[in-house]
Amino acid sequence: MNRREFVSSSLGIGLPISSGVLWNVPPQTPAGVTRFVRFRQAHGTAFGILEGKEIHEIRGDLFGSYQVTSKRHRLAAATLLCPIQPPKILGIGFNYPLEIGKRRPPDHPEMFYKPISAVQNPGDPIVWPEGATRVAYESEMVVVIGKTCRKVSIQDAPSYIFGVTCGNDVSEREWQEGENHDLQWWRGKGCDTFAPFGPVISRGLDYNNLKLEGRLNGKTVQQASTSQMIYSSAVQVSFVSQYLTLVPGDIIYTGTPGATGLLRPGDVFEVELEGVGVLRNPVVAA
Amino acid sequence: MNRREFVSSSLGIGLPISSGVLWNVPPQTPAGVTRFVRFRQAHGTAFGILEGKEIHEIRGDLFGSYQVTSKRHRLAAATLLCPIQPPKILGIGFNYPLEIGKRRPPDHPEMFYKPISAVQNPGDPIVWPEGATRVAYESEMVVVIGKTCRKVSIQDAPSYIFGVTCGNDVSEREWQEGENHDLQWWRGKGCDTFAPFGPVISRGLDYNNLKLEGRLNGKTVQQASTSQMIYSSAVQVSFVSQYLTLVPGDIIYTGTPGATGLLRPGDVFEVELEGVGVLRNPVVAA
Repeated sequence: MNRREFVSSSLGIGLPISSGVLWNVPPQTPAGVTRFVRFRQAHGTAFGILEGKEIHEIRGDLFGSYQVTSKRHRLAAATLLCPIQPPKILGIGFNYPLEIGKRRPPDHPEMFYKPISAVQNPGDPIVWPEGATRVAYESEMVVVIGKTCRKVSIQDAPSYIFGVTCGNDVSEREWQEGENHDLQWWRGKGCDTFAPFGPVISRGLDYNNLKLEGRLNGKTVQQASTSQMIYSSAVQVSFVSQYLTLVPGDIIYTGTPGATGLLRPGDVFEVELEGVGVLRNPVVAA
Repeated sequence: MNRREFVSSSLGIGLPISSGVLWNVPPQTPAGVTRFVRFRQAHGTAFGILEGKEIHEIRGDLFGSYQVTSKRHRLAAATLLCPIQPPKILGIGFNYPLEIGKRRPPDHPEMFYKPISAVQNPGDPIVWPEGATRVAYESEMVVVIGKTCRKVSIQDAPSYIFGVTCGNDVSEREWQEGENHDLQWWRGKGCDTFAPFGPVISRGLDYNNLKLEGRLNGKTVQQASTSQMIYSSAVQVSFVSQYLTLVPGDIIYTGTPGATGLLRPGDVFEVELEGVGVLRNPVVAA
């Protein structure tokens, strides 16, 4: 597909990105919501706020004080990147009734780590690692931490959450849970490109009740509301913070709903989060 | 103990640090070996090279090009920090025959992640997390990656290893492997202060044959040679790099020898690595 070509979708405008794959963001920002993106510049990268079909470039610290500059960029011409470079990444397992089936819900959030080397930009490929046999998608809402967070209560946790974005917690099932699975999920959750997220961080949304959908080659394969989570975002943040310090930019993959399935080279997978946008990544062989 | 007080030890000079606990480094640098430290300055931190009782401050990129400046600092007056701030941390389980006992050796390196929020400076305390019941020490050699590393062979892996330092892979056994253990080792290996390492990175040593010792309150409780590893440092780096990209400053805890034991508030644990130095941390209650 031509990278200068636009498509429309139920979500809004579609935009070309460097790899030739399209992603979409909602055309309008709801009241009280700010939508942040990061994009490639001639020299380096910049942050911006989405306003309709324009990005208003900002200067300063996304999580501290920043100014909206007078610089404007056409969204259609911008190459969007994963919206932040996280210092660390956590995920949670078995956090939707649809996922755990008849299994007993966990007594507490069951967290794990993904390495930051696994980060992938929207539109860029999920690469099948050599030796992999079962690479799976997991559509998820991703929470972005905005303030240093240590031993916070569930009540206070939302004030540490900067916003939410789309994520695909790509997993290799054989290494994760196959007959000869690894002791830990380091490969199963951690290979390069296994952590695509973005492109938009929405701040100000009620993220406890958003429609979440996964689409494999355009066909809906996962569908739920974030209201169905067993452990809410606030519970996850509070629980994690009892043991380790979260810092601005840390992200948490908050769990996937329903059955997941396998990805093959040539596939395109989309994660859509209501009011946020669509994360779209093609799958390629190593 | 008075922080201005010195002690001598079999290893060499002892030095006061901010917490009042002493650490030691060998008094002389062997030929062909460079020993790097990081230390606190009036404003921020700096890197330096240890030469006898002095630190020669360096400017530039530890892993790229740097210059030795004319600035000298008395080691005795310096507050040493963990020698780098790692982008990510890996560890390996069951990597010494003494640890695995009669268990079958793993088919391949069994890696896991520790979060960077767990980093602790030499001399600063290992904090018992609230709710913890069995906090254990694990004396280890820690490998520091010096160059971006992706799909390297075992033969080439050593050229990606910048140097080695001492580490304590602090673990909470109940969360890691107790009756109601967590799904993954995120708490078991990842609480704040569970990743002390340092204070010295030795570059140029034959790290495949170094004496490694752990001491609890001065009593030797672990003792081995890094030559006894099931998977050498080079094998670990090569294997990990098949799946994820390692970058300068990443560290790998290369496994602990023999039985480990529990730490209690009030204890002091030391990890000594031949030709590198001693990592010493007190243990305190939350």
